[in-house]
Amino acid sequence: MRYELYYWAGIQGRGEFVRLALEEGGAEYTDVAREAGGENAMQRLLGEGSAHLPFAPPFLRAGELVIAQTANILFYLGGRHGLAPADEAGRLWAHQLQLTIADFVDEIHDTHHPIASSLYYEDQRQEARARTADFLKSRAPKYLGYFERVLERNKAGDRHLVGASLTYPDLSLFQIVAGLRYAFPRAMTRLEPKFPRIVAVHDIAAARPRIAAYLASDRRIPFNQHGIFRHYPELDTDG
Amino acid sequence: MRYELYYWAGIQGRGEFVRLALEEGGAEYTDVAREAGGENAMQRLLGEGSAHLPFAPPFLRAGELVIAQTANILFYLGGRHGLAPADEAGRLWAHQLQLTIADFVDEIHDTHHPIASSLYYEDQRQEARARTADFLKSRAPKYLGYFERVLERNKAGDRHLVGASLTYPDLSLFQIVAGLRYAFPRAMTRLEPKFPRIVAVHDIAAARPRIAAYLASDRRIPFNQHGIFRHYPELDTDG
Repeated sequence: MRYELYYWAGIQGRGEFVRLALEEGGAEYTDVAREAGGENAMQRLLGEGSAHLPFAPPFLRAGELVIAQTANILFYLGGRHGLAPADEAGRLWAHQLQLTIADFVDEIHDTHHPIASSLYYEDQRQEARARTADFLKSRAPKYLGYFERVLERNKAGDRHLVGASLTYPDLSLFQIVAGLRYAFPRAMTRLEPKFPRIVAVHDIAAARPRIAAYLASDRRIPFNQHGIFRHYPELDTDG
Repeated sequence: MRYELYYWAGIQGRGEFVRLALEEGGAEYTDVAREAGGENAMQRLLGEGSAHLPFAPPFLRAGELVIAQTANILFYLGGRHGLAPADEAGRLWAHQLQLTIADFVDEIHDTHHPIASSLYYEDQRQEARARTADFLKSRAPKYLGYFERVLERNKAGDRHLVGASLTYPDLSLFQIVAGLRYAFPRAMTRLEPKFPRIVAVHDIAAARPRIAAYLASDRRIPFNQHGIFRHYPELDTDG
């Protein structure tokens, strides 16, 4: 079965967490919005298309199914492409970690849009400074400290979040590190040495043959100032 | 099996979405933090207790399992207590809706804490006004419009979000309506007539015998100014 991924064409955004799983899973997929006419097809599905109406992209068409919400898509893909444990306890644990990553992603987004997604960054810059200061001082270290501890306590070894092999939350953690490096290079220089296991998970994921090939391809959209991770030098303090 | 729910003792918060499912499901559970010494037991589990370390409450102990993240807990409970469809497509759809409710809840929380959870409301009141104005004008109608449309398009009837009977997202939608009425009575007076199906779901859930008994009991913590839904009259505009 060939999947159809629906997500905005110009950004990594939340769609990237799905792309990484599709790529590592060796799944065949069409990145619909990046094809000619694709954004229109996506808007059509959002407007009226399916029985299981998505609130927002990303969503995945898998045969008859249309699945939305990033973590929900990963839950579905994880079980089918060897990116999640087979047992229920393991699947719930991987999903729990993914939902915590989703919370982290929301907070990363809100550093540059603390007042309203519908306003320009420039119209909430002052508030963005205050929110980002708190984020870099408290929230980012709290989330990173949590995932470092999860790695440290994994009985199967600290190279993966769940069990002894790579699962979809590892891929998402890779993306978090890559994105934070783009958005906050100065703060990350200070933070990274405190979280060596997280950095190792990033490196392990980046070195997987399929992920390495993906990152080197033009399927990987470069980070830019329209996605979740944005680099505004005035926000990137030492914390 | 008797469940143990771990959540802050003094607020409904995110724990309430789990409590409603436990109550409607007729599950036996202990609300641990509300017992003597319970908050200490919770802090201990958060600090070091379990193999599957939670990032934050709520979390549920179910025999050997410790499950965190509200939507993940509901996914688990839904399948065991007749509060979710049995088939995979239905379970993913219910979960997708729950994750969208979780996003809505995050945005409701951030109306009064747009800059930092660690700061008092009074220290971010100006920013809270701006964020709430956008929330009441754009975001709340967008989410409510979405759920109204989902109800309208449910082929099994518009009295439930998923299929022909009550599922856990219905209970969470009840809580959203109850909470928004507490926090924004003025805005809700204006909004509610536009979303009659959502109001009906609220009423249907409230009339279920187990939910009605729960709401009348002292197990239901009253809304207050420490939870997700807070009533600050200066934020509650006509939109």
